[in-house]
Amino acid sequence: MTADDRRAGSGPPVRDVPIGLTVSGTRTETDSIGEIEVPADHYWGAQTQRSLIHFDIGDDRMPKEVYHAYGYIKKAAAIVNGAAGRLPHWKADLIARVADEVIRGDLDTEFPLYVWQTGSGTQSNMNVNEVISNRAIQLVGGELGSKHPVHPNDHVNMCQSSNDTFVTAMHMAAVQMIEARLLPALDRLRHAAEAKSREWEHVVKIGRTHLEDATPLTVGQEWSGYAAQLADATDHLRHVTRELYRLAIGGTAVGTGLNAPPGFGDEVAARLAELTGRPFTGAPNKFAAQASCDALVRVSAAMRALVAPLFKFANDLRWLASGPRTGLQELVLPSNEPGSSIMPGKVNPTQAEAMLMVAVQVIGNDTAVSIAGGEGNFELNAFRPVIIDNVLRSARILADMIEHFRRYLVEGARLNHGRLADNLRRSIMMVTALSPVIGYDKAARIAHRALDEDLTLEEAALKSGVSRELYERVVVPENLTRPGVAEAGAGDATGGSR
Amino acid sequence: MTADDRRAGSGPPVRDVPIGLTVSGTRTETDSIGEIEVPADHYWGAQTQRSLIHFDIGDDRMPKEVYHAYGYIKKAAAIVNGAAGRLPHWKADLIARVADEVIRGDLDTEFPLYVWQTGSGTQSNMNVNEVISNRAIQLVGGELGSKHPVHPNDHVNMCQSSNDTFVTAMHMAAVQMIEARLLPALDRLRHAAEAKSREWEHVVKIGRTHLEDATPLTVGQEWSGYAAQLADATDHLRHVTRELYRLAIGGTAVGTGLNAPPGFGDEVAARLAELTGRPFTGAPNKFAAQASCDALVRVSAAMRALVAPLFKFANDLRWLASGPRTGLQELVLPSNEPGSSIMPGKVNPTQAEAMLMVAVQVIGNDTAVSIAGGEGNFELNAFRPVIIDNVLRSARILADMIEHFRRYLVEGARLNHGRLADNLRRSIMMVTALSPVIGYDKAARIAHRALDEDLTLEEAALKSGVSRELYERVVVPENLTRPGVAEAGAGDATGGSR
Amino acid sequence: MTADDRRAGSGPPVRDVPIGLTVSGTRTETDSIGEIEVPADHYWGAQTQRSLIHFDIGDDRMPKEVYHAYGYIKKAAAIVNGAAGRLPHWKADLIARVADEVIRGDLDTEFPLYVWQTGSGTQSNMNVNEVISNRAIQLVGGELGSKHPVHPNDHVNMCQSSNDTFVTAMHMAAVQMIEARLLPALDRLRHAAEAKSREWEHVVKIGRTHLEDATPLTVGQEWSGYAAQLADATDHLRHVTRELYRLAIGGTAVGTGLNAPPGFGDEVAARLAELTGRPFTGAPNKFAAQASCDALVRVSAAMRALVAPLFKFANDLRWLASGPRTGLQELVLPSNEPGSSIMPGKVNPTQAEAMLMVAVQVIGNDTAVSIAGGEGNFELNAFRPVIIDNVLRSARILADMIEHFRRYLVEGARLNHGRLADNLRRSIMMVTALSPVIGYDKAARIAHRALDEDLTLEEAALKSGVSRELYERVVVPENLTRPGVAEAGAGDATGGSR
Amino acid sequence: MTADDRRAGSGPPVRDVPIGLTVSGTRTETDSIGEIEVPADHYWGAQTQRSLIHFDIGDDRMPKEVYHAYGYIKKAAAIVNGAAGRLPHWKADLIARVADEVIRGDLDTEFPLYVWQTGSGTQSNMNVNEVISNRAIQLVGGELGSKHPVHPNDHVNMCQSSNDTFVTAMHMAAVQMIEARLLPALDRLRHAAEAKSREWEHVVKIGRTHLEDATPLTVGQEWSGYAAQLADATDHLRHVTRELYRLAIGGTAVGTGLNAPPGFGDEVAARLAELTGRPFTGAPNKFAAQASCDALVRVSAAMRALVAPLFKFANDLRWLASGPRTGLQELVLPSNEPGSSIMPGKVNPTQAEAMLMVAVQVIGNDTAVSIAGGEGNFELNAFRPVIIDNVLRSARILADMIEHFRRYLVEGARLNHGRLADNLRRSIMMVTALSPVIGYDKAARIAHRALDEDLTLEEAALKSGVSRELYERVVVPENLTRPGVAEAGAGDATGGSR
Repeated sequence: MTADDRRAGSGPPVRDVPIGLTVSGTRTETDSIGEIEVPADHYWGAQTQRSLIHFDIGDDRMPKEVYHAYGYIKKAAAIVNGAAGRLPHWKADLIARVADEVIRGDLDTEFPLYVWQTGSGTQSNMNVNEVISNRAIQLVGGELGSKHPVHPNDHVNMCQSSNDTFVTAMHMAAVQMIEARLLPALDRLRHAAEAKSREWEHVVKIGRTHLEDATPLTVGQEWSGYAAQLADATDHLRHVTRELYRLAIGGTAVGTGLNAPPGFGDEVAARLAELTGRPFTGAPNKFAAQASCDALVRVSAAMRALVAPLFKFANDLRWLASGPRTGLQELVLPSNEPGSSIMPGKVNPTQAEAMLMVAVQVIGNDTAVSIAGGEGNFELNAFRPVIIDNVLRSARILADMIEHFRRYLVEGARLNHGRLADNLRRSIMMVTALSPVIGYDKAARIAHRALDEDLTLEEAALKSGVSRELYERVVVPENLTRPGVAEAGAGDATGGSR
Repeated sequence: MTADDRRAGSGPPVRDVPIGLTVSGTRTETDSIGEIEVPADHYWGAQTQRSLIHFDIGDDRMPKEVYHAYGYIKKAAAIVNGAAGRLPHWKADLIARVADEVIRGDLDTEFPLYVWQTGSGTQSNMNVNEVISNRAIQLVGGELGSKHPVHPNDHVNMCQSSNDTFVTAMHMAAVQMIEARLLPALDRLRHAAEAKSREWEHVVKIGRTHLEDATPLTVGQEWSGYAAQLADATDHLRHVTRELYRLAIGGTAVGTGLNAPPGFGDEVAARLAELTGRPFTGAPNKFAAQASCDALVRVSAAMRALVAPLFKFANDLRWLASGPRTGLQELVLPSNEPGSSIMPGKVNPTQAEAMLMVAVQVIGNDTAVSIAGGEGNFELNAFRPVIIDNVLRSARILADMIEHFRRYLVEGARLNHGRLADNLRRSIMMVTALSPVIGYDKAARIAHRALDEDLTLEEAALKSGVSRELYERVVVPENLTRPGVAEAGAGDATGGSR
Repeated sequence: MTADDRRAGSGPPVRDVPIGLTVSGTRTETDSIGEIEVPADHYWGAQTQRSLIHFDIGDDRMPKEVYHAYGYIKKAAAIVNGAAGRLPHWKADLIARVADEVIRGDLDTEFPLYVWQTGSGTQSNMNVNEVISNRAIQLVGGELGSKHPVHPNDHVNMCQSSNDTFVTAMHMAAVQMIEARLLPALDRLRHAAEAKSREWEHVVKIGRTHLEDATPLTVGQEWSGYAAQLADATDHLRHVTRELYRLAIGGTAVGTGLNAPPGFGDEVAARLAELTGRPFTGAPNKFAAQASCDALVRVSAAMRALVAPLFKFANDLRWLASGPRTGLQELVLPSNEPGSSIMPGKVNPTQAEAMLMVAVQVIGNDTAVSIAGGEGNFELNAFRPVIIDNVLRSARILADMIEHFRRYLVEGARLNHGRLADNLRRSIMMVTALSPVIGYDKAARIAHRALDEDLTLEEAALKSGVSRELYERVVVPENLTRPGVAEAGAGDATGGSR
Repeated sequence: MTADDRRAGSGPPVRDVPIGLTVSGTRTETDSIGEIEVPADHYWGAQTQRSLIHFDIGDDRMPKEVYHAYGYIKKAAAIVNGAAGRLPHWKADLIARVADEVIRGDLDTEFPLYVWQTGSGTQSNMNVNEVISNRAIQLVGGELGSKHPVHPNDHVNMCQSSNDTFVTAMHMAAVQMIEARLLPALDRLRHAAEAKSREWEHVVKIGRTHLEDATPLTVGQEWSGYAAQLADATDHLRHVTRELYRLAIGGTAVGTGLNAPPGFGDEVAARLAELTGRPFTGAPNKFAAQASCDALVRVSAAMRALVAPLFKFANDLRWLASGPRTGLQELVLPSNEPGSSIMPGKVNPTQAEAMLMVAVQVIGNDTAVSIAGGEGNFELNAFRPVIIDNVLRSARILADMIEHFRRYLVEGARLNHGRLADNLRRSIMMVTALSPVIGYDKAARIAHRALDEDLTLEEAALKSGVSRELYERVVVPENLTRPGVAEAGAGDATGGSR
């Protein structure tokens, strides 16, 4: 706390001014580089403005979720600094009040910076510091750009660096997106798959391996596999996301905590936990926490791994639904939209296609994250913006896609029972059940005969000397969907495999 | 042309109604699925509206460049259909007129669809068809949603399918972005590097291999390497981009051209070439052109390959500029912004960092493209939206980043001559020049001695029996930046390598 | 058990024939496709031979670890089948005996198949079945290729399918490689880093962020970061690897367990746990376990995530050791080999370079795994060989590389204390400590002045009105490596930031 | 040439000693680090031995092709040095003679080094230098390890550095592998596809988009698409590979050509062109050529892009062949091997699966290459071994896989004409042809009716008021495989779309 601060006592009156600056033209702001004109109708200051000029690259803006998380950080830091007497209470309160506006998204338009900026996220941190400073100044009737009585660095950023706060905000934003949106969506999709699994528990179908006809299973069993894959992937993501609870806050510039008092990081983390209801704590090693984004790399890798079950699920469903006359047509998907601008009446598995595209995007996003994750140098990983943008983008499109896929495809899917029964009747691979009785080699000859002579399995088996009694006892589709070995029949029947 | 069309003659009068629908509430639109309410203040129809509901996923919208390209396609098709008498002239003119509004971007707000949609792009094609239909209807005073007198499928989409037009629009949008923005930016960066190379042609410095001190070269030579890398990568990208001139248009639904007359694709491509000034032609094999996105995959791969020289350039420059007191500090970069919220006076190589982040993003984007590129099935690659979004995104951020990197970093870079000279004086690796004279083994002993005894190379060489005459003749930094073998000196000096 | 089996009683005498077939020429073997000649000096049969012909692709062979794992599986299955009376005891014992030879690697030359083969791994499973069959036949004096008395399918493969056993072998081989080799190597590297951290606990150095000079920390703190990154990544990998304990065994062809008795999978898994000392169990959902390789995808992703700390560690060390005269030269690495064929006396950070290359290879390998992981269809993921080859390759090169990196680089690294002290003296960024006292803006002016006028920080501070007392009290490098806020000094000093 | 060399005259007699060292135990070799024992039965020297110890990592050895290329380089350099009088003729001849043994692969066992080694490839270059030195010494009856009269650095490596020669060898090895193996294999596969396209030119089938039934095309058209995709990808790869003709040779340590005479690189390149029959030339900018591997990055990217057509081709074929009773079963693939260890008679699309796995591996390999390609620093890219290993591995498995895929799958594929005809009869999407006549909306209603009421298209059309005459004129499958617009029929029929 500066001498000035101590003199200030209870501070100036705070007026209830709504957000907004109804001024046109520009205002002069300053930073250590010098003066610069900024639009007079915005709260941001010199460093934000410089970034807008130097980094007007593409359409990718730093995600709003990062700023909302920053709102919590600035509030918690102000509370802790205020309580410790480093900051006059009225300044702490003022910062906290504006931080609440940031948290609520009310100041979203004041955070215009691009993803492609300084690798530490400093410009976004300064954007927050500048906006809170000027908005606070407005609330107490001060002069915008004067940095008085609330200075962006000395007060809003007190005991903080971009190097600890930005990665803290990254963790918080990612936790929020994953725990509040992605994991619940995954749970719902799994439940929907489980419901279908139960619904179709007793419907027998011909399985496929290598895309080729195989032995039977129930549709319910097949869907239990989708559900189980999702359950495991969800558990994994949930577990890995917990690593993000550990926050770099308190490490300041290089992890040592310079310019922050001992315990500052843990205190702020405790406040963040209170404010958000999530169990945030201080990272045990701040050097690792600032020099790397390893926990986010692992979370991104977990989302990439999540792609495997989602890709398979969507791909299987669109194939099973292929047709309506020349495909597999076991499944009937909801007709959500016309499928073609030229072919009237066409309906396509569009939700599945969108899911597959989201899946490859997530693999692509993670590729960027995993390369960037190794590129830290010394006390800082300076690839943070590209990491958080990709992590949040993956989480966001996965969450939304999973919701839509469940609602507009999975829940409305129906079976084509006629086709399933037809397949069962025509398939040959139930010959497998005969194999333990008559031996693999003889069973193989029956299968080849069925195919070569265009026979049903039954016809081929009986023609090859299998007794009707044996056939009818062993080749019962329902039974073949459960473990069980047919008992050996007559000795001669097994001669083939001795 | 339907009987109705033939009856229509010169058509209804076209009124000069500005763009915009000042109605509130909703309007009923229909498609083959049925009726649906759409916002009355927008031109889009039923299929767009269904897509908005079913694919409200993330923040990624189909890039506007795709719609602008579609504007050209709809215009060219209308002209060709009009000229052939398949479409009454007045309808063709009307469609072309509205298509011009699309091309100019005046209808951008009418194209709200997401990247994550049907894999063929049909929904974006129908969005264009619907908007042009309704805007045309507005211009002739018809009833929005009536599809009369300009029907989205029968007229705007006449002789077309999404399957041929969407990938045509993808090619056109990518060509435009790369040829109009990325390649020129690359050329300018290369020219800037060449200018520096000439400027610093005679400044000798110690080279580095494995990050370790090596033999000298000039700063100009080093920068000639950056320029040459860029030149080769640019040539490659320019070459590959030409593949995109071949357009799928005319293949309609599955590549056969059903519902389009023979030659339609080539005629439309010729019109597109006229309208855009780029040498578009019909793709020679429409089945390949619609079932794959191979040319775009190759363009994406070329952008990924472009990352190599850009990554190295940016990385080298930030390392050479590292310091100001404990790094390599050979180079001084422009001080664009304050670098730290906590460390006063810090300046960082932010443009280089942003370039490195863009580079890893492009690798990530291409990963998605290359996976998606193989995932076509039968007559269609249904991963088109994710492909075009990533290709355009890569081209856009590369183009902008390269511009900013040149302007805010490369052009303002200066040398720290004192440091360069100091390095030259202290380095040991010029011992290499002695090697052809005294043999590798003896030269190695001199180098190790210099290091072990903390000597300069000269001191170590003289102490090891190299004559001052030989040393001064051979170890001339400037000479060592050019090819040349020192002549063998006295026989005894070379004994070491026998 | 066939009638034949029941008649066999205690079986033929087993002779103690050493491994090897000293016959030349070929032998006729058969499978359901027909007859085929195989080399008479090898045990493999018809299906192995067909695979050798049809898949003679590149140099990549199915890793031996997969076959060793298969040895355990065939042994455990034989034991369980024998105990249940499905297989005569003497056959079970015979299979188990040969399986032990497989486990020990004594039959490694009999497993010649390529990675690029059927996607289920069936050919490698049949290779094992055939080799065990013929080796068993040899031991009881039978005729090779007769499949009697030990049939590759009916006996060695009894109650099994490739679809459950191959992925079981993949899990077992990966667990073994990671738990026995990779994790211990990681632990040792972390311990080595921790030892260095303790050793250099009190050596103060200038930190670097954005490659630029920052505030000080101790070398020990820096290395504690490396250790902490490794610890977290190791914990994560250890956790994820446990998923591999769940084995598909018992699911047979499509996950239903057809042709295996109820409980078979759990029994075999229990035996595998006994035989290997690792807590293997039956997978709870066999449909997921066979239709996906999700657990391996997650393990691969964890190895990819491990790349981040390893890449940074190796990269930091080679940069810190760069020089010896024109680099950062804070660190001195062991001189393991001459570094150049042309530059005498050059020594390079070769272990670090190899680590960086291994790191990018692991990212590449995981890219293949993650794509392949999503490509399962219906009841089988048919990309198994490429998945296990990449997983094992990543684990193997990581394990070996980490060992070598520790032994030949980390443990022998020494500090260049002179350089560290010099950097400390020359750096400007300790101005940060003055910032809480005099304000950020004034501190920034001091820093810029130091740079512009080529002053030390102390000189610049005193010239700018900071009192010597204040300077000496606040700017104490050792103190700046710990949390702590300098107290505000005289009011006027802080005027700059009010 | 040293004084010693000049004295040597015509040199010692060269004896015709066969390759091989029949000594046991070890031999002392030396380098600038000191003495080291090497196995006495091998030619390699101290630096190779050190590398074997320090880099015994995994199973990945530097590909032999690199050494064969090095044989050419050492031979060409010796010839040029000999001709210029820098090396006595007899030494030049001796080196060239041994280099021929390297080229022929006769010394392959002498090149044991791992991929994971120094990033410049210096250790492999020194391996070659040492082996040639000692083999030459053996041929003239000298003492192994004496480096006399042929010194590994001074003579075998004369005017060379690893920094220019290793990347030269990389280019040469990659050109050879791609031009001699991969491109011809691609051409043959394309020709095989073209042959099938001609064979099936007139077989009409139902097309599929989004996996869903679409309008018809001929099987020949479909296969023309595969061929066209392959042709374009092959052209692209052929074009990009030509970049590799430009060789770094002559740049020596950092690109300046220090210790090589002016023109050396071009002269050696000219000799390499003569010796290999490929148009190699000196790279125009040696700084770029040594500091990057950009041309190889582009070649790798081209192989990655080649994956798209190959993945689709293999994937389409396995799906078209799926069945035999419950799949698409349009195509019948050769029955190369039994497909299952448990399901008798099963046959799988194994060549297609192997191709798909090779494809994802190539994407993975290229990921490593593209990351490594950007990681050069200053005058050297020190990720060369990982780059060349992945490039050669991709080219090798692609070449072999493509050959096997053609021979064992494509050439033997047959059509299931019954199924194709059946599909044609049952499909609904030929309604598209009616659309230009009756309008899209009415056509859509017919399609939906056919589906809802389980009618054929013809039945649904007639029931919906389309005249039999119109139907039979327009819906002719063969006609629908060519461009063409059905003429408008009766006015009332088109009322639906007005």
